[in-house]
Amino acid sequence: MADAVRVLSMEAVHRAKSGHQGMPMGMADVATVLWTKFLKYDPKNPDWADRDRFVLSAGHGSMLIYSLLHLTGFKSVSMDDIKNFRQWGSATPGHPEYGHTAGIETTTGPLGQGLATAVGLAMAERHLNARFGDDLVDHKTWVIAGDGCLMEGVSHEAISLAGRLKLNKLIVLWDDNNVTIDGVATIAETGDQLARFKAAGWAVKAVDGHDHGKIAAALRWATQQSKPVMIACKTKISKGAGPKEGDPHSHGYTLFDSDIELARKAMGWEAESFTVPAPIKKAWEAAARKAAKPRKDWEAALKVSSHAADFKRAMTGELPAKAFEALDAHIAQALEIKPADATRSASGAALAQLVPHIDDMVGGSADLTGSNNTFVKGMTAYDTDNYGGRYVHYGVREFGMSAAMNGMALHGGVIPYSGTFFVFSDYSRPAIRLGALMGIRTINVLTHDSIGVGEDGPTHQPVEHLASFRAMPNLLVFRPADQVEAAECWKAALKSTTTPSLMVLSRQKVPAARETGDNLSAKGAYEIRSASSEAKVSIFASGTEVSVAIAAQKELEAQGVATRVVSTPCWELFDAQDEAYKASVIGSTPVNVAVEAAVSLGWEKFIGQDGIFVGMTSFGASAPQDVLYKQFGITKEVVVEKALAALK
Amino acid sequence: MADAVRVLSMEAVHRAKSGHQGMPMGMADVATVLWTKFLKYDPKNPDWADRDRFVLSAGHGSMLIYSLLHLTGFKSVSMDDIKNFRQWGSATPGHPEYGHTAGIETTTGPLGQGLATAVGLAMAERHLNARFGDDLVDHKTWVIAGDGCLMEGVSHEAISLAGRLKLNKLIVLWDDNNVTIDGVATIAETGDQLARFKAAGWAVKAVDGHDHGKIAAALRWATQQSKPVMIACKTKISKGAGPKEGDPHSHGYTLFDSDIELARKAMGWEAESFTVPAPIKKAWEAAARKAAKPRKDWEAALKVSSHAADFKRAMTGELPAKAFEALDAHIAQALEIKPADATRSASGAALAQLVPHIDDMVGGSADLTGSNNTFVKGMTAYDTDNYGGRYVHYGVREFGMSAAMNGMALHGGVIPYSGTFFVFSDYSRPAIRLGALMGIRTINVLTHDSIGVGEDGPTHQPVEHLASFRAMPNLLVFRPADQVEAAECWKAALKSTTTPSLMVLSRQKVPAARETGDNLSAKGAYEIRSASSEAKVSIFASGTEVSVAIAAQKELEAQGVATRVVSTPCWELFDAQDEAYKASVIGSTPVNVAVEAAVSLGWEKFIGQDGIFVGMTSFGASAPQDVLYKQFGITKEVVVEKALAALK
Repeated sequence: MADAVRVLSMEAVHRAKSGHQGMPMGMADVATVLWTKFLKYDPKNPDWADRDRFVLSAGHGSMLIYSLLHLTGFKSVSMDDIKNFRQWGSATPGHPEYGHTAGIETTTGPLGQGLATAVGLAMAERHLNARFGDDLVDHKTWVIAGDGCLMEGVSHEAISLAGRLKLNKLIVLWDDNNVTIDGVATIAETGDQLARFKAAGWAVKAVDGHDHGKIAAALRWATQQSKPVMIACKTKISKGAGPKEGDPHSHGYTLFDSDIELARKAMGWEAESFTVPAPIKKAWEAAARKAAKPRKDWEAALKVSSHAADFKRAMTGELPAKAFEALDAHIAQALEIKPADATRSASGAALAQLVPHIDDMVGGSADLTGSNNTFVKGMTAYDTDNYGGRYVHYGVREFGMSAAMNGMALHGGVIPYSGTFFVFSDYSRPAIRLGALMGIRTINVLTHDSIGVGEDGPTHQPVEHLASFRAMPNLLVFRPADQVEAAECWKAALKSTTTPSLMVLSRQKVPAARETGDNLSAKGAYEIRSASSEAKVSIFASGTEVSVAIAAQKELEAQGVATRVVSTPCWELFDAQDEAYKASVIGSTPVNVAVEAAVSLGWEKFIGQDGIFVGMTSFGASAPQDVLYKQFGITKEVVVEKALAALK
Repeated sequence: MADAVRVLSMEAVHRAKSGHQGMPMGMADVATVLWTKFLKYDPKNPDWADRDRFVLSAGHGSMLIYSLLHLTGFKSVSMDDIKNFRQWGSATPGHPEYGHTAGIETTTGPLGQGLATAVGLAMAERHLNARFGDDLVDHKTWVIAGDGCLMEGVSHEAISLAGRLKLNKLIVLWDDNNVTIDGVATIAETGDQLARFKAAGWAVKAVDGHDHGKIAAALRWATQQSKPVMIACKTKISKGAGPKEGDPHSHGYTLFDSDIELARKAMGWEAESFTVPAPIKKAWEAAARKAAKPRKDWEAALKVSSHAADFKRAMTGELPAKAFEALDAHIAQALEIKPADATRSASGAALAQLVPHIDDMVGGSADLTGSNNTFVKGMTAYDTDNYGGRYVHYGVREFGMSAAMNGMALHGGVIPYSGTFFVFSDYSRPAIRLGALMGIRTINVLTHDSIGVGEDGPTHQPVEHLASFRAMPNLLVFRPADQVEAAECWKAALKSTTTPSLMVLSRQKVPAARETGDNLSAKGAYEIRSASSEAKVSIFASGTEVSVAIAAQKELEAQGVATRVVSTPCWELFDAQDEAYKASVIGSTPVNVAVEAAVSLGWEKFIGQDGIFVGMTSFGASAPQDVLYKQFGITKEVVVEKALAALK
């Protein structure tokens, strides 16, 4: 049966003249034992909520999972798809893509991230198990990882977090073949992986990755541990590929016609290309039917469960209306009281309305809880004796945190949010990108969003980060100006079910900016102050600089210059508006100014090539924040002066 | 003597009402033993090439190093600077900044990176030792790291790389105080750090971090190992702070007037605020004089060394003229032959000219040597038995690689370059940022720069990365169009001694674009094709899309539409040109088109608010690259069609 995986993988790569057969052939035995004897899944119901999750962290070996999906009878991967491996429109892209092919639990390819995402899948499982009980949620998360995955830094964050949280339903199968692209892995890595995982609190074991009996024994052992499990599967790369078996150069597309012939001979495989002999296909499908058996019991349990309605709602990600009612009341009050506040506090205030009403929200922080305002009173810590806790102490692991959040969102039943400093979004960036690519809902709270950080200095002051994330497709970058906008942005973020969001928030206090209007942030940009007569100047700003813009407007109006102010809390939502609305917001005043305590890249779209930009052109510095705003010239005075000069 | 460090740290933080006294007070004993008995340095010659490097990876504890610099007599930190801790213009910013304060070897603050940078410092030391001998280069690299540093993923890449390379002159002192911002460290981390480092090939030991005798014995032991060394220094946070000693909440600014009083009492410290009793200051300076003794021997050795001239040249970073002569000849030949090539090959061809002439260049790749074209024939691998090797197999460790490159550049004597896929620049980004902030010369070769990656699909296809790096201050983002531009960009990158560079290069082949002109890439953007008469259309493009632009121009000209083409290999160099040049390049044609296989963010600066952008608005897909260009509409036909439509 394993040879079917090998042949399909080898032939698909050969036909595409692109891809990797080394890993699928090497791990075919381990995968076959797993998918025929241990994995809980149902090809007819790929979305069954309590299925085991299988993550191919070494995503370049995508033909492994495509072969498995095809052989076990998933409709999503036909033999034509396998023939069209890596071609436009096929279900079999170069790396497995979530949402593109049923049976793929997460997009993988950027090494290490599959493992880190799996930690989030396993965290969500334990959390929902605590919430809904063994009857509804009780499954494992299996990972196949390669040498590259274990070299990536994020693997450290993932395994130390999993070890700390004793995620015993997480099982990692390491393809220990001692090969990476540049040759034998030892040219770059000589560490003892088993000792390393053990030091992080994992149960570990090594096994011959080609001995089915030993593999089965090891997997059985793995399911009985009280810690996360790592099994080093000693394999030969391209196992079965005749003379190319074990050759470091057989990692990627390197088997030519004659090699394929020799490999088929070595395996004794006589079927035509891209056909699987009926008895073998039947054996695979029979194994899959067995793997699907628990589904009926589970459905029966769901039917009688008192949690059924809430469980189903949670898994679809629907939000209770009462949460938004509470938020709207909070907004109405803010419009009334007009509180001066840091926008991180404003975000915390919005969360205080949402978290009690949305049980699915699981928060956290990368060791900056007090600074990020992500903790809401009444939450308890997610811990080994309290997996039902809704607040995760992620530790100083920004990337691991964001990847785990992806995993939770992918699992379903959890809406993850968490915090760090905006400048450290650079650490999380690869996971945020993967979330954007997968189209899932995670909310990254990013406080300390500019030189407003103050004394911590340039290492802690983002200046390029807004532009760098505005460049990323399918991501909402929110930068609210005050308490009203912060609440509106949270609403928009939660309602964006197929797009991750960043909440970019200030450390320092700002006056209330919004005086009136309903849910204007949802349009991305809007006129927050109109001019007293036909406007001569438009000032565009986001976040804390909206108050600078409003102060400048007052001054200009006082000097007889009609001026309007546009707040731009979310460029991406603005881009999605119709042309007429966009034109009305951009306007056509003779002078256009943008104010943002960040670099100018992209602002031309609001202010044109001749617009005036008041912001940063360099990294920041260490000093109290008010001193920095003055020194870097991001003040009402500068805006007024430049606008007046341009009017002349 | 250690109490002097404690009091200065505590008082500076108290006065600034900002900063962290917990670590400086906790590690004062270890630092005192190190700086008075082991560290090789000279306060009068902070740039002495063979000094030991000291890296405060836990950069938030900056008052530790400022105290040490002041006490040992560095001119760079006066008592006024200590009083002005974290204030505008002082030598004592919130986090230590390289280039700002003599004695600071690297900017730290973003956790984990100090340690990863130190690996590069230690790699450079071994390399230059192999090149110039023990007489000229033979020193240690010491690191103080905190719990946060060891939680960050990059710490894994750093320690496994250092372990692999047996960097025995690298010694890490871990401030094992079990405290992070959110509380006791065990809320997020329970791993066994000693076992973890041991698994990575390090020598490890634990010591009481307040017992000077035991600390000295441990440091002595550390200097005798054949592997990198990690010593867990068991400390109490805020040691000496009376009742606040050991309190997890005393990490940052939390000691108030009464606490300071109690702490002084506990330490028996009676001197006025911001004064150090003369005998104590003298003892510190005497220790520093002792630490500086080897400098004279070293200078004598340098005088008689046959390597003296080359060593001095290398340490200043000056480049031999012959390298550029070779490069210019190569460019002349390329203008003649007009080779069609992938720009990654073009970069490799430029490297083949430079590497043999510039001994200081040390290359490498994060396990993508064959793909990145970073290896030049004749190079040997940097390895434990060949530290003189100039090619580093960094493994799948993009972030660790870029941080190590920063360390090499900071050390001096090495000009590091290395490669990965452009999409994985996201992993390296925090280190690239730190390099830009420090103003050092590293060159990051980033191949596979667009949907031109083809079959590997969207996980491997950068679309937002150009914009995201163009947003970063003090960074040169090069995207050459062909062999001539690639060589010119390498020249510009090497000559930019205070700015890191990215070489963004294609996987796929493109025709030669440049026909004439000398070193035009140095201006960042220039007219590569002029119009046959007064231009009606300007087409702007970079990299592989320059050939699309040129093809479109031909077609438009054939249809009677005078069209010019501007190549934009480096926006940052273009921004630095004078206004007249910039205006002439941008021009004033009625129709402006930009073509780039990436997102549009920032292009308005060339094409205006009404310009036409032909590029990406989403992530890519998996298919052969020519199919993708067609499917995403980045073709000559689309450019022509849109330009004609706009002209009507």
